[in-house]
Amino acid sequence: MEAFSDGVIAIIITIMVLELRVPHDASLPALRPLLPVLLSYLLSFIYIGIYWNNHHHLLHAVDHVNGPILWANLHLLFWLSLVPFVTAWMGENHFERVPVAIYGVVLVAASIAYYILTRALIALHGRTSTLATAVGKDFKGQVSTVIYLVAIPLALWKWWLAFALYVLVAIMWLAPDRRIERTLVE
Amino acid sequence: MEAFSDGVIAIIITIMVLELRVPHDASLPALRPLLPVLLSYLLSFIYIGIYWNNHHHLLHAVDHVNGPILWANLHLLFWLSLVPFVTAWMGENHFERVPVAIYGVVLVAASIAYYILTRALIALHGRTSTLATAVGKDFKGQVSTVIYLVAIPLALWKWWLAFALYVLVAIMWLAPDRRIERTLVE
Amino acid sequence: MEAFSDGVIAIIITIMVLELRVPHDASLPALRPLLPVLLSYLLSFIYIGIYWNNHHHLLHAVDHVNGPILWANLHLLFWLSLVPFVTAWMGENHFERVPVAIYGVVLVAASIAYYILTRALIALHGRTSTLATAVGKDFKGQVSTVIYLVAIPLALWKWWLAFALYVLVAIMWLAPDRRIERTLVE
Amino acid sequence: MEAFSDGVIAIIITIMVLELRVPHDASLPALRPLLPVLLSYLLSFIYIGIYWNNHHHLLHAVDHVNGPILWANLHLLFWLSLVPFVTAWMGENHFERVPVAIYGVVLVAASIAYYILTRALIALHGRTSTLATAVGKDFKGQVSTVIYLVAIPLALWKWWLAFALYVLVAIMWLAPDRRIERTLVE
Repeated sequence: MEAFSDGVIAIIITIMVLELRVPHDASLPALRPLLPVLLSYLLSFIYIGIYWNNHHHLLHAVDHVNGPILWANLHLLFWLSLVPFVTAWMGENHFERVPVAIYGVVLVAASIAYYILTRALIALHGRTSTLATAVGKDFKGQVSTVIYLVAIPLALWKWWLAFALYVLVAIMWLAPDRRIERTLVE
Repeated sequence: MEAFSDGVIAIIITIMVLELRVPHDASLPALRPLLPVLLSYLLSFIYIGIYWNNHHHLLHAVDHVNGPILWANLHLLFWLSLVPFVTAWMGENHFERVPVAIYGVVLVAASIAYYILTRALIALHGRTSTLATAVGKDFKGQVSTVIYLVAIPLALWKWWLAFALYVLVAIMWLAPDRRIERTLVE
Repeated sequence: MEAFSDGVIAIIITIMVLELRVPHDASLPALRPLLPVLLSYLLSFIYIGIYWNNHHHLLHAVDHVNGPILWANLHLLFWLSLVPFVTAWMGENHFERVPVAIYGVVLVAASIAYYILTRALIALHGRTSTLATAVGKDFKGQVSTVIYLVAIPLALWKWWLAFALYVLVAIMWLAPDRRIERTLVE
Repeated sequence: MEAFSDGVIAIIITIMVLELRVPHDASLPALRPLLPVLLSYLLSFIYIGIYWNNHHHLLHAVDHVNGPILWANLHLLFWLSLVPFVTAWMGENHFERVPVAIYGVVLVAASIAYYILTRALIALHGRTSTLATAVGKDFKGQVSTVIYLVAIPLALWKWWLAFALYVLVAIMWLAPDRRIERTLVE
């Protein structure tokens, strides 16, 4: 399951760059309309990177899986696979309000899918397992979901407020999370 | 063989999303014509997920392979690789009758290819092997093929009848199949 | 090296299907102009499958690698990566003579690259190694190269003569090759 | 981390070929405008190959990773993921000065990202680790960065001067580097 998920996530993170359409002009100003697309790509690259990172740590604590867990995992991958689409839509429309809001909708769905996956894994491994301890209360995950839910309506008012919240969540996850690492290594 | 197949299936499931063409408009109504494409994508995502799931369980019971089995496997991957094409054709044409029927043709071909692969593996491992027991009579696989064969002509009459049958088969497979899991784990 | 090569070959074999452009029309006749593209895709799918198969067997007999071998391997992957391009060019132009000839040029280059890779591996492992015995004289590989070289000028005269030769080589490789398998298994 | 990185690099090296757009014409002259695109592809194929090669050797000497290293690695992959974009821009504009300069900017950024990754790994493993010995002073890496920095302004004057420097760096890396190999094998 880990190899397959890693493969899908690797493809998602890489095909996003295909939306950076090559300009026909060879001048520096020709790159300017691509800046929002690049910014959008950078944000999503970091988000997919965060998911890979967390998913990777999570699966390292997994002993065994069953059918429902395979499907909970595919459910997460489905939402992540929509990230390139919303990334391109948001970037190409220079962060118009609706695409920025829909971007948040996909982030919410992915974070819920991740939550379901962790719960299914804990249910299988038991509440006293290494995995349960490693995941803990997943405070960060729940805060992220709440921030996305706040960002979606805000996007329809001022897009940059929502964007700032997306960046905030990314920074929150980029900050080293010693929780899982510590549990797994010790 | 498993790593290569996992890679190909991971790519197939992910490149399908490239057919979700980014609309030029940034409004919510601009997403409406994409709904059938998204629905078509969702169905195929589940189907490819089912194939990955079954294929994964199948190869876990495999001890050794030979040339014909490598080719039986590639034959299956060939038909699965046509899924993104028929998915996009069906979605972009808003479930017109011919694309819905051709979608069924590819599903039939893939299910026959899977059947050939299981038979070739059982022939190599012997009828009393763990693999043969795990695969069993593959009742579900044969029922699926029959349902597809019924769906194809139905599609030419009422597309949604065929679509409903495709969804039915997907649900049948999504329901946890304890057969292989049990044999492999115990 | 094997994981990376498997990944590249898996991507090559799968992205070829992206050249099967979805027709805007939902009728069966709309698929007719795609038939040569599909035929071209099928041939290349088999060829890439053959390369994966042989490459897989080859690397299983490999004990250690060095820098030049990594580059000989990348050299092979480079030519294989051009297969999707020539496949699409040949298919979309309905097997015109020049694309059919250029297809042969890429096949020749790939077969030479494979030859170089086997020689570099034998040079490193020694002429009496399992690998050297497994590869043997690689009669089939040399015959293939000669057939491609004959097919290229023939393509410029009658495209189907060259195409028939390409099919012939594919069949020659599809026929189970017990040589490597036997050496490796026994 | 290695499997994921290998996957991303394999996808990057392969999707570049999608920029080799299939000409509508079936004649040999129709390929002529593709020659710069092919040349650009070849150069980038070699560069990504070099990165894969070095990255592969580097990770083989790695014992353990932490959060910052995962991010240093993703940072490198981010810049490498921009290579297909600048490759296509440079090729399709027949090596105009600005794209050739921007190509160099991405090379500089990737080489700095690689440097950061090696330093983070050495900081974690200790200055007396196998890894630190294997990486050494990374003289080649630093020379490459300097050459890119020289090439960027040169590109704006004469594109082929910069291109010649890019080729020079590639040749420098293609020449077998016995340093890491020796340390790791002995």
